[in-house]
Amino acid sequence: MNAPASIGIVIPRKAHFDQPIRLRSGAQIDRYELAYETYGRLNAACDNAVLVCHALNASHHVAGIYSDDAGNIGWWDNLIGPGKPVDTNRFFVVGVNNLGGCHGSTGPASVNPTSGRPWGADFPVVTVEDWVQTQARLADHLEIERFAVVMGGSLGAMQALQWTMSFPDRIRHALVIAAAPRLSAQNIAFNEVARQAIMTDPDFHGGNFYAHNVVPRRGLRLARMLGHITYLSDDAMAEKFGRALRDGALKFNFDVEFEIESYLRYQGDKFSEYFDANTYLRITKALDYFDPAAEYGGNLTKALARARAAFLVVSFTSDWRFSPARSRQILKALVDNRLDVSYAEIDAPHGHDAFLMDDPRYHELIRAYLSNIEIA
Amino acid sequence: MNAPASIGIVIPRKAHFDQPIRLRSGAQIDRYELAYETYGRLNAACDNAVLVCHALNASHHVAGIYSDDAGNIGWWDNLIGPGKPVDTNRFFVVGVNNLGGCHGSTGPASVNPTSGRPWGADFPVVTVEDWVQTQARLADHLEIERFAVVMGGSLGAMQALQWTMSFPDRIRHALVIAAAPRLSAQNIAFNEVARQAIMTDPDFHGGNFYAHNVVPRRGLRLARMLGHITYLSDDAMAEKFGRALRDGALKFNFDVEFEIESYLRYQGDKFSEYFDANTYLRITKALDYFDPAAEYGGNLTKALARARAAFLVVSFTSDWRFSPARSRQILKALVDNRLDVSYAEIDAPHGHDAFLMDDPRYHELIRAYLSNIEIA
Repeated sequence: MNAPASIGIVIPRKAHFDQPIRLRSGAQIDRYELAYETYGRLNAACDNAVLVCHALNASHHVAGIYSDDAGNIGWWDNLIGPGKPVDTNRFFVVGVNNLGGCHGSTGPASVNPTSGRPWGADFPVVTVEDWVQTQARLADHLEIERFAVVMGGSLGAMQALQWTMSFPDRIRHALVIAAAPRLSAQNIAFNEVARQAIMTDPDFHGGNFYAHNVVPRRGLRLARMLGHITYLSDDAMAEKFGRALRDGALKFNFDVEFEIESYLRYQGDKFSEYFDANTYLRITKALDYFDPAAEYGGNLTKALARARAAFLVVSFTSDWRFSPARSRQILKALVDNRLDVSYAEIDAPHGHDAFLMDDPRYHELIRAYLSNIEIA
Repeated sequence: MNAPASIGIVIPRKAHFDQPIRLRSGAQIDRYELAYETYGRLNAACDNAVLVCHALNASHHVAGIYSDDAGNIGWWDNLIGPGKPVDTNRFFVVGVNNLGGCHGSTGPASVNPTSGRPWGADFPVVTVEDWVQTQARLADHLEIERFAVVMGGSLGAMQALQWTMSFPDRIRHALVIAAAPRLSAQNIAFNEVARQAIMTDPDFHGGNFYAHNVVPRRGLRLARMLGHITYLSDDAMAEKFGRALRDGALKFNFDVEFEIESYLRYQGDKFSEYFDANTYLRITKALDYFDPAAEYGGNLTKALARARAAFLVVSFTSDWRFSPARSRQILKALVDNRLDVSYAEIDAPHGHDAFLMDDPRYHELIRAYLSNIEIA
């Protein structure tokens, strides 16, 4: 085995789909594109494909860099690459930007062919189930009949879980990391404050801000600041920032005083420069709506009775957004169904964001699990 | 003892102060008013006075109702009144609206005598220490040399704690409920998002919105929605709202869908109708700044070495804003100083807001503690 390295330069691609898709909401999209990337090679048996599903603000750019933008490193580059836990010497890895996204796939900022203008507010609400449908079409396009692995963290993990229910015969292993079987009232509450921040920004214009040549930056900034609070544990924030003052002394005004304020403003500002507000709204809705047990009277075991995959479920002790207790609910439903399940609760201080971190125990776990998957 | 009853009709008063006050920031306010209410009678020995300090959005209207507004019940009416745990048949209770407030005391919306216009952005940042100074002047005004009790919950509890350090000889007992010795980075982070929501509202006008005849309602609304998330426990929110839908089915749009959304929007709307944005900003700063240990190298025991009062410290198991662990830090510093301390951790599901609730164990604890206080 060579020492782990980055996959290096990668090329984003687009797949065009002309077959209309009926969404869970009842709305239909006639034509759409999905931006995706692939790393490694699909083997002759076509049994080594790994689909990586993204969470809130990530994209199809999962690993590597772009030839014209070496600073733009894929969001899970620490995990995926040659010799890395998700070893691209062995697996064919697919990253995809979800429908409704803002990184190249058809979304609210795309031109609506029926109007000739950006979709804006008219872009439908999309759900985890819808995303999995479109991901299956991308699999068809790539001639992948069955994924060795579908994996993701947070909202990405919900998609991996949904794959085992929507397409039980097309997935061998699901890696469900830092997930919850559905959002709690508190989770929804945070999403709702973020949505209201965006929707009450005067520059939102009811979602049709493109025509006004503005962006609801204030709202996006607040949404992101709030998001960051929920991504980090209380302890991680205390460790990283504590009560440290930016300039050493209190100023008794409303400029940045504490380091944590500086961090949040920076993260908010940066996010508001590139993320689409309508996409943000829809992704939070997809989170709120995800609840596979709902149509089984709240019984997650029944919802997962269709599943055939083997599972690795991973949670992180300090994650208060989706705590280990929520992963154990998933675990219980899988065990109840006598499925092949491994579960790990990683003692990590970083909170929800731990799934993105380079934690040796976590990464070695993923490596060990994947190395046991048989491929031709 | 009669059955507990409301104190009934109460009358708010104002005290005028012409002696300038130098604030912790270095700013000076030459003249100011404090709105206050009193219930019960100051006894001849003047040893039965109880000062109630308010938290974020409350006021001097602690108990009872107004003759012209019977629906406006004091915020701690369940605790304070004839025969109640804080028994106004026995104690002389004083409620005060803090300097910088928006319920009658001099604050940012008051007219600045030097300009003839509302203070707005020019109103100084006020601190817990400043509030305690002004409360002591109110005590002088009421001819209260020494309080039997200074009490409060949350930010109000920080004032009670500060009293024991600023005026150790003027307080016999401090009731420190649902408090923290200082904010964590996460606490500050929530405050900062709330502040940014207000300050980036185009109707804020740098704090001088009064002149524009507008109010930064959007910002206030978001700040309050966010606040409510931190006041309730995850479990309480799950119990109260869960994933219940307002209209029984998903709508696939951005109207209110989940009950929790409806609750938050209602609370936010209501708050934005009456609360002053500049006051909100300053109160969150007072929270951020409170850190009595800071000038003792982070040693809370040393900070409290001046204290002479007896203490009742109360925390609530489900409070994740100021968790029991934070109250135990206060407890430890008091015990280290060999002070007379009682501590109770109430097993209550409501989260931080538990200090406002009518919980029998909590209320009986307060009753028992106060009944042991000797008065002439």
